[in-house]
Amino acid sequence: MLPEVVLEKAASEMLDYRGSGMSVMELSHRSFYFEEIMDDARHLLRELMQIPDNYEVLFLQGGASTQFLMVPLNLMNEGKKADYVNTGAWAKKAIAEVKKQWDVKVVGDSSDKTFSYIPSIDSSEMREEASYLHLTSNNTIYGTHFSELPQTSVPIVADMSSEILSKKIDVSDYGLVYAGAQKNIGPSGLTIVIVRSDLVGKNENIPTMLDYKTQVEAGSMFNTPPTYAIYIAKLVFEYLKSLGGVEAMEAINKKKAKMIYDAIDNSTLFKAHVPDEKDRSQMNIPFFAESDEINKKFIAEAETEDLFTLKGHRSVGGMRASIYNAMPMEGCEKLAEFIQKFDANNS
Amino acid sequence: MLPEVVLEKAASEMLDYRGSGMSVMELSHRSFYFEEIMDDARHLLRELMQIPDNYEVLFLQGGASTQFLMVPLNLMNEGKKADYVNTGAWAKKAIAEVKKQWDVKVVGDSSDKTFSYIPSIDSSEMREEASYLHLTSNNTIYGTHFSELPQTSVPIVADMSSEILSKKIDVSDYGLVYAGAQKNIGPSGLTIVIVRSDLVGKNENIPTMLDYKTQVEAGSMFNTPPTYAIYIAKLVFEYLKSLGGVEAMEAINKKKAKMIYDAIDNSTLFKAHVPDEKDRSQMNIPFFAESDEINKKFIAEAETEDLFTLKGHRSVGGMRASIYNAMPMEGCEKLAEFIQKFDANNS
Repeated sequence: MLPEVVLEKAASEMLDYRGSGMSVMELSHRSFYFEEIMDDARHLLRELMQIPDNYEVLFLQGGASTQFLMVPLNLMNEGKKADYVNTGAWAKKAIAEVKKQWDVKVVGDSSDKTFSYIPSIDSSEMREEASYLHLTSNNTIYGTHFSELPQTSVPIVADMSSEILSKKIDVSDYGLVYAGAQKNIGPSGLTIVIVRSDLVGKNENIPTMLDYKTQVEAGSMFNTPPTYAIYIAKLVFEYLKSLGGVEAMEAINKKKAKMIYDAIDNSTLFKAHVPDEKDRSQMNIPFFAESDEINKKFIAEAETEDLFTLKGHRSVGGMRASIYNAMPMEGCEKLAEFIQKFDANNS
Repeated sequence: MLPEVVLEKAASEMLDYRGSGMSVMELSHRSFYFEEIMDDARHLLRELMQIPDNYEVLFLQGGASTQFLMVPLNLMNEGKKADYVNTGAWAKKAIAEVKKQWDVKVVGDSSDKTFSYIPSIDSSEMREEASYLHLTSNNTIYGTHFSELPQTSVPIVADMSSEILSKKIDVSDYGLVYAGAQKNIGPSGLTIVIVRSDLVGKNENIPTMLDYKTQVEAGSMFNTPPTYAIYIAKLVFEYLKSLGGVEAMEAINKKKAKMIYDAIDNSTLFKAHVPDEKDRSQMNIPFFAESDEINKKFIAEAETEDLFTLKGHRSVGGMRASIYNAMPMEGCEKLAEFIQKFDANNS
């Protein structure tokens, strides 16, 4: 979802961006107009996330899946070792990519219980000589998130695709944060990378387009960037700022998630996939009834009340509510009420 | 530039795509609506370029610059050799990328005359055991293009970023064609790859996101594709089809280019950077007066007549007219007339 004001602004500027006579899609990425959009986007993200000066902010292409490769290519030390936490589908893909060329150790794994919790990581399991520790901060499919980070002396790398800008984080806790923009910011085709400066340029002979150094030196414009996606991201950043920034979003998101978790927990029919409150994602809430017939009935009846895309991922089944930043409070209220009503009528 | 009808359509559908209640930017790439957009885009491109069935059509991210790496990774034979033609800045970048890991031979080079011609390639120079022959079919900066292909038994790989869909080509002459969409199609953040099926999956252990096989098997949806850019590309393809397809565009483009070349050739002040008619690009026309003062005066006066972005690339100087598909005939007429007028007043 995207905020309606963002879409309205984009529609109104489609044929003429600020009197330029051109659409943003037609602007050269070397034009004054676009350089300003890029600068504003970078500046706003720095402000919203309070990114320290010793971190670079990059706007790239290729999705988080491309970061599964760029992270080890750029960050590996000579020992070529890295530790990973396996909390679900995306973590598994990241691990598979690293296994192709490097020494990866899985130091935490919640696959034994369908990824319904965040594993605690024994510090003796983590390798001191690891180049970094990688985790998926929020799992989209299984609905878990890290409420606190593992204690480690190596840089933490986090895939934040499904929770970036949804809550306050301290960027200095991380060596690198990456996120596909399509879930919590809006446009697809844009990937955000926030990387500590000393981790850039460590390794030589990386292919040009996979080297963070290339894009740091070129201000994310080594080649033509995804201009329109950056423009939309900028509009979303402006909107978040106008709402009070990330702290305000976090308060709203907590309230939104609590309403739905409460409705599930207070029902007789439904259970949340993630039992432990501290591991529960504020963005993705998988839940289910024991009977698959009830699940189907719930999804079908929800659609008649304009509550869509509630079907759970095939690997979990049941239902899943994805309530990213742009999902309004009213949508969550409506869902919580529907859960209560359905539960009363069917239990 | 983008056709005005495309921008109008995009603006009108921004808040509600075909009654879905959602913007294209909000559609899941797994939704019926987006799958239809993707299928239509692929189908239309196949139709416009008459792409044979034994070729795959991919919609990727990362620009032509990422193809400089993906092409050798995927297409190299065991000997790890490839031949390249150097016709300017983009070819040089492609060559530099291959040099990092493979054996590259430059079999044609026009750097001796500021890339103002297409070098003829001696067949004895080309290696029979080369994995492929790479060329930049149209050079954006220096304004050359290949009017005929070198005779070779190895697959020809062409970077067509600045002339795709501007003229009829026989795709079966090529092993692989790639193009960033931002020049002649419109949106940035989208790269088109057309590859002969037998060249996909030749090499093992390629990083997932750099393997054509990954995206062939996933129908260009291994991860979230750049959905909005694909939607805009689809609208442009529909528009080209409505105008009569690539053959009609080629006739229009020839007429547009001829007007400007004629004005330059018939002037006393100006010379085209590329003297030989058969090597002259129909998309990019660099030209200049001997005096740099005249060049500056020309650019300044042109702007007062709403003729913008005529400044040549710094490596050639002078002026450059880029007249991609979306540049209307009237724009070219206006420029040709202005060249004549300026020449009459200043020579």
